[in-house]
Amino acid sequence: MSEPLISLEAKEAPKRIAEQLEENDHATDKLGSHLKLMKPRYIYIVGRGSSDHAGTFAKYLFEIETGIPVASAAPSVTSIYGKKLNLDKALVLVISQSGRSPDILAQAEMAKQSGAFVVALVNDENSPLCDITDAVLPLKAGEQNAIGATKSLLTTLSALLQFAAKWSSNKELRRSIYDLPELLEQSIKAPSIIQPELLTDVKDCAILGRGFGYAVAREVAIKLVGLCGIHAEPFSSAEFLHGGVSLIEQNITVLNTLIQDESFKSHMAQVRQFEQRGVSLHHIKQPFKKIPPRFAPLTVLQRFYLDLPEIAKARGIDPDNPPGIQKITRTL
Amino acid sequence: MSEPLISLEAKEAPKRIAEQLEENDHATDKLGSHLKLMKPRYIYIVGRGSSDHAGTFAKYLFEIETGIPVASAAPSVTSIYGKKLNLDKALVLVISQSGRSPDILAQAEMAKQSGAFVVALVNDENSPLCDITDAVLPLKAGEQNAIGATKSLLTTLSALLQFAAKWSSNKELRRSIYDLPELLEQSIKAPSIIQPELLTDVKDCAILGRGFGYAVAREVAIKLVGLCGIHAEPFSSAEFLHGGVSLIEQNITVLNTLIQDESFKSHMAQVRQFEQRGVSLHHIKQPFKKIPPRFAPLTVLQRFYLDLPEIAKARGIDPDNPPGIQKITRTL
Repeated sequence: MSEPLISLEAKEAPKRIAEQLEENDHATDKLGSHLKLMKPRYIYIVGRGSSDHAGTFAKYLFEIETGIPVASAAPSVTSIYGKKLNLDKALVLVISQSGRSPDILAQAEMAKQSGAFVVALVNDENSPLCDITDAVLPLKAGEQNAIGATKSLLTTLSALLQFAAKWSSNKELRRSIYDLPELLEQSIKAPSIIQPELLTDVKDCAILGRGFGYAVAREVAIKLVGLCGIHAEPFSSAEFLHGGVSLIEQNITVLNTLIQDESFKSHMAQVRQFEQRGVSLHHIKQPFKKIPPRFAPLTVLQRFYLDLPEIAKARGIDPDNPPGIQKITRTL
Repeated sequence: MSEPLISLEAKEAPKRIAEQLEENDHATDKLGSHLKLMKPRYIYIVGRGSSDHAGTFAKYLFEIETGIPVASAAPSVTSIYGKKLNLDKALVLVISQSGRSPDILAQAEMAKQSGAFVVALVNDENSPLCDITDAVLPLKAGEQNAIGATKSLLTTLSALLQFAAKWSSNKELRRSIYDLPELLEQSIKAPSIIQPELLTDVKDCAILGRGFGYAVAREVAIKLVGLCGIHAEPFSSAEFLHGGVSLIEQNITVLNTLIQDESFKSHMAQVRQFEQRGVSLHHIKQPFKKIPPRFAPLTVLQRFYLDLPEIAKARGIDPDNPPGIQKITRTL
């Protein structure tokens, strides 16, 4: 079997990101300066599917690095309930690969009309989304032919990182951002982080994570669902205690995302509580330990995207043609 | 077998809510007037577990009824990553039954210090949370002895409704709010909305919903997990298209929450797409059709809480003593 499209596209990510960081260098400088003056009251993020997982990453990133609260849009408030929100003095980030989904466009238009400063993170620079917004950060991910976004999600996360680096006062992030492509190249060469055997016969499983690790868990879960037909549900390990933990009685397989950042100690303390209750956890570990903490989620996903088609194949699924899923989904 | 505690407590809800609406009448008047003057820029909601589902309900409620954007807290930003957010000019709603969970208290303190107007929706009026906040809306749910919150969630939703009714310009809501207890009484007497047979042998399932129906779906799912040991995952029907839909190939059982409000038509159009792909859906319907739309989610949950112990029993589980779950969970 030739290499699946999804692997080929995932492997493009480091190069695409290197280009993106260079091409957006000036645009993110300008954006950072503007936002330091503007001082938005809060950030409102619009996105669906994998873009919504990038939104979870962005929530932690911007709240932690800038101290500005981040909200996630419920697009149906506008598209279905017909309500216009007052987003005056907000920074609105619209994350979309195609820039064409009708409910995402409706949110962007509403944001603009109500006085928000609207920034699009978008792959298709000719999309109607770019005509609406105040600024565009092109993802430069190139064309997607695989079922399942990989490089476009990684390029979204890198764009968010560069944006946060220029806006926040995190000097380490600003200094190290250009090392990211090389770290992702190394992740590609690193050993796999999920053994396909672990999931070959699994019908359902839980994916735990906390903080940035929860954003990773959400993305890992949706990919296992969409490409491998596994009912994988993501849980914040904190929320898991409030109910999900009962699934342990059903001998459900539990995977746990380990991110080496400020959350590591307390996340592990919680995970040990689960282990004391008899759960055997399988850790999804970073390919490398000593790296800038904000890059860790990207290295995990980069490596996971290469393990993913192997998991699918072990289950008898063609990763380039999984049953039941379409590439681009438009939501009304 | 005597009636399970969880049913007895769920049946208390209408009476508790009648008392609550009367006792909080003046406090919500005052709160409504204050917020009309204050004009908060956005709302920031803090809560975990079922309280977080109340937060999902609150997001739709306040965005739709007041046009003010709503964010949901990621408590670990403060408790784990040690970051203080700037919540100046925000309305912060802290939803907590016990008012004692350390990470929830840390969020409330941070909000107060950074200049937010903080309102607690709390059951225990002697809890430390009440000492921190600007205003308290007591839930008046009484003591909880069952495993699994029922009346405390319903009283949270009713408190949110009364609050929104006084603050917004929705006159119908203000006029009809005092009819809510009677509608819930009728829901108790209505026929069951989920037949236990449907879920007796189910290992995992998906619960769909859109808008307010999604808030209901989240609560239904966590209860089926916690009390019945079913791996039930909630999906916004819009997000389901972006991945979850693949589970259809696994012949997963799909339940769909139907709420008769502005979302009904487009939600049904989406659901029909799933049906065309061969999914057989089981609808969770409102006990009554012609009621004020914002009350519909509460009538569904009121009735569901009485079906829930029957589903547990059909699976051989004692609903008052389900394996693997504890009543009150404190998160560090």
